[in-house]
Amino acid sequence: MTEKTTYNIAVVGATGAVGQKIIQLLEDKNFPINELKLLSSERSAGKKVQFKQNELTVEVAAPESFAGVDIAFFSAGGSVSKKLAPEAVKHGAVVVDNTSAYRMDDEVPLVVPEVNKSDIKSHKGIIANPNCSTIQMVAALKPLQDVYGIDRVIVSTYQAVSGAGEAANDELVKQTKQFIANEEMEAELLPVSGDKKHFPIAFNALPQIDVFQENGYTFEEMKMINETKKIMHAPQLAVSATCVRLPVFTSHAESIYIEVETEGLGVADLWKVLGNAEGVALEDDPSTQSYPTPLSAANKEDVFVGRVRKDLDNDKGFHMWVVSDNLMKGAAWNSIQIADSLIQNKWL
Amino acid sequence: MTEKTTYNIAVVGATGAVGQKIIQLLEDKNFPINELKLLSSERSAGKKVQFKQNELTVEVAAPESFAGVDIAFFSAGGSVSKKLAPEAVKHGAVVVDNTSAYRMDDEVPLVVPEVNKSDIKSHKGIIANPNCSTIQMVAALKPLQDVYGIDRVIVSTYQAVSGAGEAANDELVKQTKQFIANEEMEAELLPVSGDKKHFPIAFNALPQIDVFQENGYTFEEMKMINETKKIMHAPQLAVSATCVRLPVFTSHAESIYIEVETEGLGVADLWKVLGNAEGVALEDDPSTQSYPTPLSAANKEDVFVGRVRKDLDNDKGFHMWVVSDNLMKGAAWNSIQIADSLIQNKWL
Repeated sequence: MTEKTTYNIAVVGATGAVGQKIIQLLEDKNFPINELKLLSSERSAGKKVQFKQNELTVEVAAPESFAGVDIAFFSAGGSVSKKLAPEAVKHGAVVVDNTSAYRMDDEVPLVVPEVNKSDIKSHKGIIANPNCSTIQMVAALKPLQDVYGIDRVIVSTYQAVSGAGEAANDELVKQTKQFIANEEMEAELLPVSGDKKHFPIAFNALPQIDVFQENGYTFEEMKMINETKKIMHAPQLAVSATCVRLPVFTSHAESIYIEVETEGLGVADLWKVLGNAEGVALEDDPSTQSYPTPLSAANKEDVFVGRVRKDLDNDKGFHMWVVSDNLMKGAAWNSIQIADSLIQNKWL
Repeated sequence: MTEKTTYNIAVVGATGAVGQKIIQLLEDKNFPINELKLLSSERSAGKKVQFKQNELTVEVAAPESFAGVDIAFFSAGGSVSKKLAPEAVKHGAVVVDNTSAYRMDDEVPLVVPEVNKSDIKSHKGIIANPNCSTIQMVAALKPLQDVYGIDRVIVSTYQAVSGAGEAANDELVKQTKQFIANEEMEAELLPVSGDKKHFPIAFNALPQIDVFQENGYTFEEMKMINETKKIMHAPQLAVSATCVRLPVFTSHAESIYIEVETEGLGVADLWKVLGNAEGVALEDDPSTQSYPTPLSAANKEDVFVGRVRKDLDNDKGFHMWVVSDNLMKGAAWNSIQIADSLIQNKWL
C-alpha cells in the first residue's frame, strides 16, 4: 500500500475568525493538501474564499460532507462540534476541534504540541484544541515545570475581543467610533452574547469572560484551571485565574505568578529554560524596555515571555508576563500543529 | 482667639488633570474657603479658571505665593514639590502633596483617611497622598486586615492613561483616531515620558508604568509594595505587584489575591466586612452580572469591589476585583479628605 502524501482537509466554520486563520496558515505553510473543503452554517454557505490559485465556495456542513476527509478542523461553536464531529469521525476523518465541547472528555486528548504532543497518539477520532488563554500559559509553564517543578499558578488575564469572534471586533470598532464622536456607546454583545446584560468594552475592562458558574468563577476561568491540569498531567497543581476582557483586537496577555518546587532560583535560571523552550520567545530586558505587548505579538506564532521577576518575599515565587496571538497559537496555529503531528507521526 | 472657619487654600498644578479635579471638588463640596490661589508653572500662568461665581487667574508658583496660605495642594510633579513644598511650610502652610516626592520619607505621614487618618496628627507640615493604585487597594485591604488579618497580597493592575496626565489622554485619543483611519499610530509619550522607547497604547496593553528599577520591578510596582506597607503599618506584609497600562481614560482596576490569617472563611465573611467598610462600595453579584468596571466607577468617590471569590486550592486565599476613579479617590478626593481631616480634627 502506497502511503498518502497529500490529504483531504475540511474546515468547518470557514468564514469565522479562526477558520479564516486556519485557511491562511494551510496556504502559508504549504500544508500537504489533496482537496480542501470549506464548510459552514447555512447562513455563510455560498461565500467564496480564495485559496492559492483557486476560488473555493463554502458549502453547508452536513454529515455526508466528511466522506473521504482525512482531517477536519472544527471552529463553528460547541453545538456544531457536538452534532457533527462524531459524524465526521464515523466517516473516517480525524477531528481537530477548537471548541470547548470535548476538552474535558476523558476519551479526548487536549493538546498543545510543545507540551503533550504524545497524547495525540491515543485519540479515538477527536483531538481537542485548548482554550486560547490556556494554550499560551501552559506553553510557558511546561518547560519550567519540567526543570524546576511548579506547585502553584495564579493568573490574571488581559484578553482581546477577537476571542469572542468577529462580531466582538465589530462591536469594539463601533463603540470606539461612537466614543470619539461623543455619542453614547451601544453595547449589544460583550461580555457574553446571550447573557442578561451587556457593557461597553471600548475604553473599559470587563471582568467577565463567558458565563458565571455556581462557584462564582466564570467558565473561562474554570477552563484555564481545569484544562491546565489536564494538559500538564498535573491534577494536583494549584491553579487560579481571573479573566478580564480588554479593548484590544488581537493577542491575550497574562500576568502569571508561579511557585516553583526548587529553592534558590534566580531570574537567570528561568530565562535559561524559557530561552531554550520550543515555541517560546523570551523578550525580557528592562534596560532596553523589552517586553511583549498585544500589538507586538499579533500575527506571530510564538508565545512571548517578558517581565520575569523573582517575588520579593517568597524565594520560590516568580512573576512573568506572557503574550500571544489568540487566533494564532491560541487557536489556528495550535490546530495546524496538531494536524502536522498527526501526519508526521502517522497517528491519523 | 477666635477660631478660623474659612481657610486660605492654594492649588499648585492648577491646570493639570488632578489640579482641575481638586478645584472641582473644592467647589462641589463647598469647602470652607476664604481665599483660593491657583498656581502653576510659567507655561500655564495667566490661564483663567472658573470657580463658583468668580474667574480666577492662574499665577506662577513661587516661594512667596504661600504667604498667608493655610493648606496647599501640590500636584505639579515631584520636582516642583521638592522645591516649593518646604517653602510653603516655611510660610506656615500645611502641604497635601500628590507627588511621590515625600511619600517614603519617615517624617511625612502617607495617608488614606479611611485607613490611617490618625497618622495625619504627627505631620511636620507635609502630608503625602499615596500613589493612585495604592490608595484603592489599601482602602479594600484595611477593613479585611482589621477583622481577619492579611499575610500576603499579589496584585495585577489595569490602569488608566490619565494617571500619566492630560498628555497621555491626548495621546490615546490621537492614536485611536489614527488606528480607526488605518493610519500608523504615533507613540511619543507612553509608557513613560522621557524614557528611551515609546509604544502605542491604543488597542494595546503596556506592562510598564514608570521607569524600571535595579530589581526588574517598575517604580510604580515598588510604590505599590512600599506604600502599602507604610500606610497599613505592616512592614512584614508580603506584597507583590505587576502594573499594566490600558487604553482606558479613567479608573484603575486591580485583580487582587490575598491570603488571610483566619481559617475557614467564605466569600460571605468578606462581603460582610467590605459591605460595611467606609469608602468601599460592594458591587458583587454574579447572578445579575454585577461587578465594577472602569467606566462604571468613573467620576465617583468610592472604591468599588466585586468578583470576590475563594481560592479553590487554598483555604486562606481570596480573589477580588477593585476599581476606583484614579483622579478622584486615587488623587483629588483623597487629598480633599486629608484637608478635611486637618480642619475637623484641628490638626492644621
